[in-house]
Amino acid sequence: MQIALVQDKIIPLEKLDSTYLDRGLFFGDGVYEVIRSYNGRIFALEEHLQRFAESLAAINITGIDINQIRSRILKAFDAAGISNAKIYFHITRGSAPRSHVWDDSLEPNFFLAVTELEEDTQAMNKGIAVSTHPDWRWKRCDIKSLNLLPNVLARCDASQKGCDEAILVDEAGLITEGAGSAFFAIIGEKLQTAPLSANILPSITRKYVIQAGTDIGLEIIEKSLTPQQAKNSDELFIAVTTKDIVPVVKFDDCIIGNGKPGKYTKLLAEKFLSFTKRKSANDN
Amino acid sequence: MQIALVQDKIIPLEKLDSTYLDRGLFFGDGVYEVIRSYNGRIFALEEHLQRFAESLAAINITGIDINQIRSRILKAFDAAGISNAKIYFHITRGSAPRSHVWDDSLEPNFFLAVTELEEDTQAMNKGIAVSTHPDWRWKRCDIKSLNLLPNVLARCDASQKGCDEAILVDEAGLITEGAGSAFFAIIGEKLQTAPLSANILPSITRKYVIQAGTDIGLEIIEKSLTPQQAKNSDELFIAVTTKDIVPVVKFDDCIIGNGKPGKYTKLLAEKFLSFTKRKSANDN
Repeated sequence: MQIALVQDKIIPLEKLDSTYLDRGLFFGDGVYEVIRSYNGRIFALEEHLQRFAESLAAINITGIDINQIRSRILKAFDAAGISNAKIYFHITRGSAPRSHVWDDSLEPNFFLAVTELEEDTQAMNKGIAVSTHPDWRWKRCDIKSLNLLPNVLARCDASQKGCDEAILVDEAGLITEGAGSAFFAIIGEKLQTAPLSANILPSITRKYVIQAGTDIGLEIIEKSLTPQQAKNSDELFIAVTTKDIVPVVKFDDCIIGNGKPGKYTKLLAEKFLSFTKRKSANDN
Repeated sequence: MQIALVQDKIIPLEKLDSTYLDRGLFFGDGVYEVIRSYNGRIFALEEHLQRFAESLAAINITGIDINQIRSRILKAFDAAGISNAKIYFHITRGSAPRSHVWDDSLEPNFFLAVTELEEDTQAMNKGIAVSTHPDWRWKRCDIKSLNLLPNVLARCDASQKGCDEAILVDEAGLITEGAGSAFFAIIGEKLQTAPLSANILPSITRKYVIQAGTDIGLEIIEKSLTPQQAKNSDELFIAVTTKDIVPVVKFDDCIIGNGKPGKYTKLLAEKFLSFTKRKSANDN
């Protein structure tokens, strides 16, 4: 008799809940998104849905109706009634006995969670410390997949060093991005970040940061930085959906600028916030 | 109210089954093993347990009692009563609301499945076709983790080309291994395979294949091959726990040898099988 063991409990395989057979669990065979709301209004929903559709296509999960996904997001957001919400969702290829090759008849699994977003005002006001870690990720980081163990391990390493984020450095000695964020430097009146490539997530927050930079008169440089160039920058910050722009005041052992959030970082954060008031996909 | 949506069903987050919050699902934050039995006897159990312990340590999952894992395997194997069984098991870091950084109080999740092993005698007798694919995997393939999406995508690509396995080629143009197997070439009286490194899983089957090669008088060369060298080889084969040694008779568009399983491959398969009769960890 084919059986499963969950912790110590024996369960006949045919009676096992399909959640245990999720290909997301066996292989990380799925893609995800994280979006947020500001004061009851979801920000950049369409951009996130567009990227989600691209991630699904990149790993050949087909037959997903993006309009249905949008409806589910709005339904859950309404039901939760959380003003500043974090909305996480993923789709996996489906549940089946473990096998690399899948059957086209598989039904994808959809999961979404709406939680209260905790604003970290201290990080915003005082800045954070970051530490570097080798970029161990796969070669298709442009796909927002559930294969996130290298990100988890890098973040764990940062945490053990008392840092809030890991900045990933590739084999060529260039910074790609943060374990869970985009990474930016201000040098003079230039805003520099890595160019989009297969090694970089096409971050939606990054897009708005670049727009904000243009709006306040900074020159945009899309070129990878070395850790040494980052240390010598006037200002550093990370950007991520759930935290917007977060100043970086320490990079490995090096204090950045005067150790306080820089003026352009603050200006960019203000500008960014103005976008969140302007753009809201769930407005009536 | 914090909520989850599973397909279309709204569930309050505090009532959600913890399986949906498995870090294995959110991040692939776990490690696994696959072992098999021959005629009621588990093969190489201790080696697999040893590698499992190393995988756990490499991703900082602590506090796992390997003796307990062994007991669970034997208990499930006995309960299943399957003579030629495939035993898959994994441990994930535990279940919690999604956050890269974890709490040390997390309880790891254990899952195991015992299924009937389907011997593919046609693959054994006639050989299989393989196709190359870029090695998109992360930089720590020596850890047997649940981050397997690149393997799945490569295998999917092979399947679309009518092939049974994808042979992964790194950025230097060298073959690392198969998407789910070790890869070997016979050139003259030499048995060649990639050396162990951070890009290669320390395959237990590989170890026994090398032992078999030594026993039948082949010289062992641990050096990576290019696809062209593979095409020019006298014989090719893959090796994997669930299938032992499988002859490769077609590599991309190139027929290997006379298009039939080679003599050394057959000799190695016979020798390998003799090990499975000798070595069984669950013998009384």
